[in-house]
Amino acid sequence: MSDGLLFRTAVREDLPSIVRMLADDDLGSQREKYEDPLPESYYAAFEQISRDLNHQLIVAVLEGKVIGTLHLMFLPSISFQGGLRAQVEYVRVDKQCRNLGIGSRMMEWTSEKARERGVHVIQLTSHLSRKDAHRFYEKLGFKGSHLGMKLDLK
Amino acid sequence: MSDGLLFRTAVREDLPSIVRMLADDDLGSQREKYEDPLPESYYAAFEQISRDLNHQLIVAVLEGKVIGTLHLMFLPSISFQGGLRAQVEYVRVDKQCRNLGIGSRMMEWTSEKARERGVHVIQLTSHLSRKDAHRFYEKLGFKGSHLGMKLDLK
Repeated sequence: MSDGLLFRTAVREDLPSIVRMLADDDLGSQREKYEDPLPESYYAAFEQISRDLNHQLIVAVLEGKVIGTLHLMFLPSISFQGGLRAQVEYVRVDKQCRNLGIGSRMMEWTSEKARERGVHVIQLTSHLSRKDAHRFYEKLGFKGSHLGMKLDLK
Repeated sequence: MSDGLLFRTAVREDLPSIVRMLADDDLGSQREKYEDPLPESYYAAFEQISRDLNHQLIVAVLEGKVIGTLHLMFLPSISFQGGLRAQVEYVRVDKQCRNLGIGSRMMEWTSEKARERGVHVIQLTSHLSRKDAHRFYEKLGFKGSHLGMKLDLK
């Protein structure tokens, strides 16, 4: 059941729940530090994101509990005749709440926000190993047209 | 020869040269409008980008002529312990100036800027059809680890 599900901008107090979800998979567990208290670097990033109107850190809340998150960014661009694009990063749903359609509702809510801002395209990347995620996004209408490449600087 | 090559932040007067390069390939020609004067939407996007310290529209200049461009973005993020990432969009080098190593020098210059800001990873996406581009980025150390997906809202 996902009645009573709501989405809102994250507040500082949501950060432990967000980091818990980020850390809770094979890739995330290698790079996050879900500790109490959280490393200060998480809070510093949160403050930066909160101050910037082109960034929205979103949480999904069910029965008072944070059970999903994503980071929505609005990216001005010269290409596509100066078209505004949206980008979505680290979409996560709590493992306890999978298969309730929460991810889809979160992405639909996000698309609506993007439309309201006049965005022409929403983009995201997903690790090549996350085949389930690719199918999930394809069902929502996303097309896997690009190769996502990364250069590690550390 | 690419001696005398310099990189700098784009100014408004560079915009026609930038749009000309964006329009000058199969994919770009379908979505850009390289006209004189340029559609106002390009200038509106330029103003937004220029005002935002997390965005840098870069041009490469050779003998006084704009012959390359890329859009560098700094993206604050909760993931990777609140690590700052950089993203590069629409890297272009004038067709007349290919195979002079200008693209590599532009990307190296960009990596240096990213390092100075404390970025831990540079990310980009490249259309699956642009095999030459993938090889180019691999030579620079990029790894094609992700699927880039897009949802068209128009």
